[in-house]
Amino acid sequence: MLKKYYARISKFSSAASLLYWDMQTYMPKMAGPFRAEALAELSGYVFQLATSDELGALLEDANPQDEVEEAIVRVGKREFERFRKIPKELFEEFVKASTLCEQAWQEAKRQDNFKTVEPFLQKVVELSREIAEKLGYEKDPYDALIDQFEPGMTAQKVATLFSELREFTIALLERIEKLEPVHDVLSGVEIEPERQRKFNEWLLDYLGFDRSRGRLDVSEHPFTNPIGLNDVRITTRYVLDDIKNSIFSTIHEFGHALYSLSIPQEFYGLPIGSSASYGFDESQSRFWENIVGRSLEFWKGVHGKFIELFPEFSQYDAHQLWKSVNVIKRSYIRTEADELTYNLHIILRFELEHALINGELKVQDIPSTWNEYFEKYVGLKVSSDRMGCLQDPHWYGGSFGYFPSYTLGNLYSAQIKHSLSKELPFEQLVEEGNFEPIKSWLYDKIYSKGKIYEPEVLIEKLSGEPLNVTYFRDYISEKAKRIFNS
Amino acid sequence: MLKKYYARISKFSSAASLLYWDMQTYMPKMAGPFRAEALAELSGYVFQLATSDELGALLEDANPQDEVEEAIVRVGKREFERFRKIPKELFEEFVKASTLCEQAWQEAKRQDNFKTVEPFLQKVVELSREIAEKLGYEKDPYDALIDQFEPGMTAQKVATLFSELREFTIALLERIEKLEPVHDVLSGVEIEPERQRKFNEWLLDYLGFDRSRGRLDVSEHPFTNPIGLNDVRITTRYVLDDIKNSIFSTIHEFGHALYSLSIPQEFYGLPIGSSASYGFDESQSRFWENIVGRSLEFWKGVHGKFIELFPEFSQYDAHQLWKSVNVIKRSYIRTEADELTYNLHIILRFELEHALINGELKVQDIPSTWNEYFEKYVGLKVSSDRMGCLQDPHWYGGSFGYFPSYTLGNLYSAQIKHSLSKELPFEQLVEEGNFEPIKSWLYDKIYSKGKIYEPEVLIEKLSGEPLNVTYFRDYISEKAKRIFNS
Repeated sequence: MLKKYYARISKFSSAASLLYWDMQTYMPKMAGPFRAEALAELSGYVFQLATSDELGALLEDANPQDEVEEAIVRVGKREFERFRKIPKELFEEFVKASTLCEQAWQEAKRQDNFKTVEPFLQKVVELSREIAEKLGYEKDPYDALIDQFEPGMTAQKVATLFSELREFTIALLERIEKLEPVHDVLSGVEIEPERQRKFNEWLLDYLGFDRSRGRLDVSEHPFTNPIGLNDVRITTRYVLDDIKNSIFSTIHEFGHALYSLSIPQEFYGLPIGSSASYGFDESQSRFWENIVGRSLEFWKGVHGKFIELFPEFSQYDAHQLWKSVNVIKRSYIRTEADELTYNLHIILRFELEHALINGELKVQDIPSTWNEYFEKYVGLKVSSDRMGCLQDPHWYGGSFGYFPSYTLGNLYSAQIKHSLSKELPFEQLVEEGNFEPIKSWLYDKIYSKGKIYEPEVLIEKLSGEPLNVTYFRDYISEKAKRIFNS
Repeated sequence: MLKKYYARISKFSSAASLLYWDMQTYMPKMAGPFRAEALAELSGYVFQLATSDELGALLEDANPQDEVEEAIVRVGKREFERFRKIPKELFEEFVKASTLCEQAWQEAKRQDNFKTVEPFLQKVVELSREIAEKLGYEKDPYDALIDQFEPGMTAQKVATLFSELREFTIALLERIEKLEPVHDVLSGVEIEPERQRKFNEWLLDYLGFDRSRGRLDVSEHPFTNPIGLNDVRITTRYVLDDIKNSIFSTIHEFGHALYSLSIPQEFYGLPIGSSASYGFDESQSRFWENIVGRSLEFWKGVHGKFIELFPEFSQYDAHQLWKSVNVIKRSYIRTEADELTYNLHIILRFELEHALINGELKVQDIPSTWNEYFEKYVGLKVSSDRMGCLQDPHWYGGSFGYFPSYTLGNLYSAQIKHSLSKELPFEQLVEEGNFEPIKSWLYDKIYSKGKIYEPEVLIEKLSGEPLNVTYFRDYISEKAKRIFNS
């Protein structure tokens, strides 16, 4: 009966996911306001089902027969109790406000005008703070929010990891900037979207993306959306003079989709039927995007097809292309940042959203504070909000506590790669384009577990130690050395 | 409170519509079974809302203040009472069975194998008959089903109209076949789908389709789907060697979408917020497809753009193209049939589905009976079910009682055109591509009324007489004369 109840929830969730996916991809413009209402209504109903007395009783009466069933009840109870703390009206108001705010953000970004979205964001921040209060926390309201994305994580733990990472990053960046810069042969060359699309579709086949269970579309901000059982969709975007943008967005979202599509089908719709955490989910997108997709071996493997579709680059060998997809450079846009400076973008966002939720930062002061911190961490002056605080949808969509997942994902991914390399000839497999053994290892250690384990437990199980900065530091230092010595 | 309740229903309906639209356009193949379940769950919930005691009480307590509010309560009560006769479990079973059957039909059609879909269809027919019993009827179970599409219509009335039409059609067809046949210069010429797509998109702009409130996509069987407020989507299909197929599908669906998008926004989601009937809805698709789109004047208007995009036809003038889109010829596929023989396809379907619902025809005998009737009415031997009883999705999707709407739509459209022509210089406006006065007339007489009036009342209000065969007969006879005398 418990499983049947969750199956019912999953169908309404699926409809809500499709409403969202469509809103970002194909929906006609004028349909926005009603869509926001429909999405709020559906999400509100899912919320009602997920907090009903009926579900509470089913969880209470459950009599789990094995470890998996125990996990269903344990994770189910945890979510149920958390949801119950949020009044339905508050939740619906939050979904509606954040849907409208995200729509307003798209327009504000186009117009490069933070002011037009400010009142919407004000509302979303207020509601997020109210939600944090309802959820409860020991010391820091932010902990209530990050816990939704990374169970067991706190602002304090994030701050500790991030501060070590920030110092190391800034120091390495300064050392690199004294060396001869890498020449980027890829950026600035105009490639029509249709040709980019062909390569991206080919890449997905090369990586083994199952088209009978997913698809690639286009949206303003790339994302992955599990729509239903055997239906996980990814998006990318085509930037005329930046071919790297679509390629790495596609590989990134492929990583998310692979995780989602690899979770055992019998977990679908149950509390354990998703990734271990947002950070773990990001570890897979970053693993495929960076550790696989930005490796020399990967570029040796795709070089032939790449120059076949893009003859304008035929004079460059795999080694030169590899260096071009690994240019380390201070830049404005998070999603275009290299692996090293990327984390500085996240650390800044974490600090700002932490302050917003704590009430130490006002919404109206976001642009100026962003620009101030950006100069301090990334070392660049921001002259346009589109290149600054308007670039990402997360805050406008109400996802406070989400941003740390990206950098946690980077840390997880390096630690995972370290463990995987003890058992598999990683570089050789990537060069051969033979991804099955890698997927199989990831399936055994991660994907097959769904959300049975908390992230702290899962990383310890697979790597033998808690999450730490060491492996990412080693990985990125080694990579920098290889790039600049060659 | 009543309006708020309907608004809630409309949001779940909107999600269900999107699940359906996506299933027909973009959904990955393996997602089918779960999608069928999700669609059944959502539709079941909408059904539950539409039959709740709460809605019953709201309708009972309603205190309408004007004619529009009276109509809301009247139509609302009528639907409520009808829905209440169907048990929720039966309805959910029907939605699920017809979704699965429609999916099985797509495969059966591809394989040209009726046998694979037969057990699914058997189930759908049984459930449809059970629904007819629950709904109740005076003489004929079919009346219970057709009433869902055409309020007030009966098998008896349809049979009377159709028998007059059938005799006239067969006689005219025989007369025409003694004349020199029209040379079709368009069919058989291969045009890549991308170029066809460009013309279809241009056509929609030419007709004034509002892109901010709708879109054009591709599906196996073209359809129009009102997804939500300010969101009505149409599909077409591109057949390599038959450019007429996509063009007239697009114009046809444009007519549906125009009606839907023109119903006053304040009616949205309410019982009066849709077209007067399926037949009236078809009258608009047929009006735009045939009376506008297959007129000589229309082809004078689009000729320049047509030969610009399709230079392979540049040797033909508007007159020759017009004759080519009006070839009258016995053929297998309903959606490709000309205006005259089209109705024979419908009459056959009406007679078969009438017999299926009455229990006079068994599902297993559909192919042989189809082929027998087809030869009798259309005069052609059917050698493949794909070209016969597998061509249309309606029965497989559970829409028994729907088919007559097409021919009723043809009759309505000719009667409407006759009335419109008394007030507007129809031919001149079409030749100028000046569709606004025509839309405005249709808005005043039809679109602005939503579902306030029953179709019998509406046709009488706008034309001064009941629906009859006269105007269609005059229109098609006159057109045939023009084609063969020129």
